[in-house]
Amino acid sequence: GLDFNGFVQVVQKTFSVLSNETFVLTTTDRIIVDADKFDKLKDGTTLYLLRKPNQVLPASIEEEINFIPHYNTLIESGTDEYFIEGQKSLPSALAQLVDNALSATAKNTGVRSIEIRMLFDKTCGKSAVVVLDNGCGMTSKQLNNWAIYRLSKFTRKSFWGSSEREGYTRPEPVRCSLNSDISYFGVGGKQAAFHIGNSVRMITKPRNSPDVHELVLSKDEFEKKEKNKEDVYKGTILNRKVYLQDIIKEETRKESFTAVVITGVCPDHIKYLKDDFHEWTRQLAHIYHYYIHGVDGNHKMDQSQKSDASPKIDILVTLREKPPAGLRQKNLREVQDDLQTLYINSAVDTFEFKATTSDGGSLSGTMNRARGKRDIFECFWNGRLIPYTTISEFDWCRWPNKSTLPLECFSRFSGVLFTNDKFRVNASKQKFMDLELKLRHKDTHFTPVFNVQKASKNRNIQKEFMQWLEKCHSQFDKQVKFLGYSKTVTRTDV
Amino acid sequence: GLDFNGFVQVVQKTFSVLSNETFVLTTTDRIIVDADKFDKLKDGTTLYLLRKPNQVLPASIEEEINFIPHYNTLIESGTDEYFIEGQKSLPSALAQLVDNALSATAKNTGVRSIEIRMLFDKTCGKSAVVVLDNGCGMTSKQLNNWAIYRLSKFTRKSFWGSSEREGYTRPEPVRCSLNSDISYFGVGGKQAAFHIGNSVRMITKPRNSPDVHELVLSKDEFEKKEKNKEDVYKGTILNRKVYLQDIIKEETRKESFTAVVITGVCPDHIKYLKDDFHEWTRQLAHIYHYYIHGVDGNHKMDQSQKSDASPKIDILVTLREKPPAGLRQKNLREVQDDLQTLYINSAVDTFEFKATTSDGGSLSGTMNRARGKRDIFECFWNGRLIPYTTISEFDWCRWPNKSTLPLECFSRFSGVLFTNDKFRVNASKQKFMDLELKLRHKDTHFTPVFNVQKASKNRNIQKEFMQWLEKCHSQFDKQVKFLGYSKTVTRTDV
Ligand SMILES: Nc1ncnc2c1ncn2[C@@H]1O[C@H](COP(=O)(O)OP(=O)(O)OP(=O)(O)O)[C@@H](O)[C@H]1O
Ligand SMILES: Nc1ncnc2c1ncn2[C@@H]1O[C@H](COP(=O)(O)OP(=O)(O)OP(=O)(O)O)[C@@H](O)[C@H]1O
Ligand SMILES: [Mg+2]
Ligand SMILES: [Mg+2]
Repeated sequence: GLDFNGFVQVVQKTFSVLSNETFVLTTTDRIIVDADKFDKLKDGTTLYLLRKPNQVLPASIEEEINFIPHYNTLIESGTDEYFIEGQKSLPSALAQLVDNALSATAKNTGVRSIEIRMLFDKTCGKSAVVVLDNGCGMTSKQLNNWAIYRLSKFTRKSFWGSSEREGYTRPEPVRCSLNSDISYFGVGGKQAAFHIGNSVRMITKPRNSPDVHELVLSKDEFEKKEKNKEDVYKGTILNRKVYLQDIIKEETRKESFTAVVITGVCPDHIKYLKDDFHEWTRQLAHIYHYYIHGVDGNHKMDQSQKSDASPKIDILVTLREKPPAGLRQKNLREVQDDLQTLYINSAVDTFEFKATTSDGGSLSGTMNRARGKRDIFECFWNGRLIPYTTISEFDWCRWPNKSTLPLECFSRFSGVLFTNDKFRVNASKQKFMDLELKLRHKDTHFTPVFNVQKASKNRNIQKEFMQWLEKCHSQFDKQVKFLGYSKTVTRTDV
Repeated sequence: GLDFNGFVQVVQKTFSVLSNETFVLTTTDRIIVDADKFDKLKDGTTLYLLRKPNQVLPASIEEEINFIPHYNTLIESGTDEYFIEGQKSLPSALAQLVDNALSATAKNTGVRSIEIRMLFDKTCGKSAVVVLDNGCGMTSKQLNNWAIYRLSKFTRKSFWGSSEREGYTRPEPVRCSLNSDISYFGVGGKQAAFHIGNSVRMITKPRNSPDVHELVLSKDEFEKKEKNKEDVYKGTILNRKVYLQDIIKEETRKESFTAVVITGVCPDHIKYLKDDFHEWTRQLAHIYHYYIHGVDGNHKMDQSQKSDASPKIDILVTLREKPPAGLRQKNLREVQDDLQTLYINSAVDTFEFKATTSDGGSLSGTMNRARGKRDIFECFWNGRLIPYTTISEFDWCRWPNKSTLPLECFSRFSGVLFTNDKFRVNASKQKFMDLELKLRHKDTHFTPVFNVQKASKNRNIQKEFMQWLEKCHSQFDKQVKFLGYSKTVTRTDV
């Protein structure tokens, strides 16, 4: 509570400055402190007591500083991340929230239900994008951790201190790596929320707890706190009993749940979500194709063969507009024109293979003789499509220069790859980081897989592939070949 | 300093719990607090006083939390950012540091000297990557701000409070937007440093100050602080007089400077920097082509015409290895095989144009009749190459279906685009966010530019372009055409 003159006197006394000595007080930036500047100094600021303003420091001086990241770390983290020139960013942003919902519902015993609700009818005040799941929910500590940028499952501590980790255990290997363990970096939820809007309310109830926990992060709040010189990363979790809410009407009926309620949705996004409903639901259906339809995908023909016994995953999309537009609703399982469905149902014969890398990476794949001309592999990471990485070929399926088979045989297939998380993706899960590199690595070993004889370790993938290709060629190619001469020839052998 | 029993007694007294009433103390996660757990509680933890552990909360309870971003925000921010599958990340990471050096030296009156020093000879203890400039340096406050993730020039405050901004002023328009103002997001320096190594020491001296300021950020330090439960974002700036240093030998000779000293450089990076010296220096020379050579680029023919009067920019690369390998040194201006030099010197005639967007975006471009077959535009942002965005064409240079000119005329040019920062790039400056979109926007107006008559507002770009194309066609194409028949015909008109 000293004023500047009082402070100067104390300084003079403390440092025994003689009354005939001239001296100045400066900041470490050598700005002279006067009465006016003194009032603006923060507590803990380091000052120099010097004979003249630009005197050389007689000794080194340590100055305490703080460099807590700016709140734009949260607000702007999603600005560029989902952006691929010429592509719409929203399906990728929504996917981050669906990823979290898939992880959260992984241990559900009943139906795993995920809902993307677009509330554009203003019945609940303002437009909102809500992603809701009936998964495990979060305790207040977990909700606190959710908000901590870059705190991932690998670095998280338990409530009781740093020695006890929350204990992340890698999931058991499953077919197509459909392990529902699609969180990695500790950034997805925040990035996605602030990409879509400028405020997010998390409402969550963990299993076996009577309490609902709520936390709001919003751009306005951050700005206000900064203006008032408060700690921007201080917030409050509201702990309360369950009650009937406008947005989450089911709150009282669910043992546990999480709702991500995003408001301040930018008008461009709202327009896109309304106008291109068909398009973005199709893209989401593509991304989660194997989670929705199981390891065999959406085979329209043989519904009988479905080999999956795990609980059903429902991803429901609803879009509510002001009357007369009304309500649109779609279960992603109903989508029949996503790329993966089209591709699976145009395939005529398949070749399966798998591979392992020296660092525990596991990969499986299916190659199809496709009728179309998609000569690429789509790539799935822990069962979820990484939309902007495709692989065009492997060493062992390249045309071997001399072959009895014509060149065009080698450009008539496409496929799907499934990797586990030993293969790295970038934080927005748009691209693989090292897939091509790993596939080409000399320690990556490919083996063919046959449904009947599984033990095919010693088989040579290139040889088996050629045999398969030859078989396909003799069975399916005659017709295709003659089509090349733009004349339809009826096959005589059928 | 109470133990658990003492605490329980205080609670009983404070909340007037009757001695025959049973009660429990739980965390907000409904974990029962006993003597053991009590010792581990942090100050400020919210506790519930309940009759039974799962009693419904009678009222909502607000719980204070903190969610300061994890230190991985700094450490991991550069992990994926510079990654483009199949491309090396280091040139892009180094470029972020060169960007900062260009900004810092923008107001130099003499030579602007930037040096990238690879110290792999271990003379200074460990391997280090150093980027050094003789720019304006930083005050201790600015150095503190440097460390704050996502604090950009647009959000920075002055030392004296939030009302006085440090005052960012947009630079005046200059040709090719070579304004040296290449910082934007407040992330580049930190991302690049931790992409390259795991520790960074900033050493800087501002002009007109006798003091050198030093700040170290290191992964080890962060980990240690977290383990000791200290504030991870608390650090110390060392303020000292200038002296002769091992790394920055010039310290005493420079009025102002900044050195970024990165250690803990990962072995893969060191290998690449050594083995591919030619390659990465060539890429940097490409990125900064116009900063190094001026607005006209590296024309080998007419050194006389250089129209640039601004101070020279030297970007020097040195790589020091243990003997016998010794020292490699290259001024990027000497590079003669970067893509931009090759392209400029293969051009036979040029067409210039410019464009403005409704939001103040300004763009200029040059189109060349190129001998090679590079049918794309490289794109520069504030004068610096954004390496992974290219533009393939504009509406007005597409083949107009019926034209007296043959189709192949329209695929024989390439060019360069220069934009100001009204066009957005992503945080790692690898890609434009909205370039194509803006170029195609109806309010983006293109006009041809002629060196002689500058006033060409009313000219129609498509018409002018066709005329240029026709001129080129009649002047240069005969030979090219006949070459198509693999026979060299001597032109009769020369
Ligand atoms: N719907 C949800 N239900 C339960 N817990 C959730 C939910 N969403 C997020 N969480 C918790 O919050 C954490 C942070 O989520 P966030 O998406 O921000 O990062 P992440 O999933 O850990 O990593 P990534 O960056 O890969 O998404 C998650 O790890 C999870 O523990
Ligand atoms: N070599 C330097 N000389 C002087 N000041 C510097 C130097 N390098 C960085 N700074 C200061 O530190 C700030 C932060 O640098 P950083 O590269 O991390 O982010 P930025 O340049 O502001 O934005 P971007 O993310 O676009 O790089 C800069 O804005 C600048 O004020
Ligand atoms: Mg996530
Ligand atoms: Mg920068």
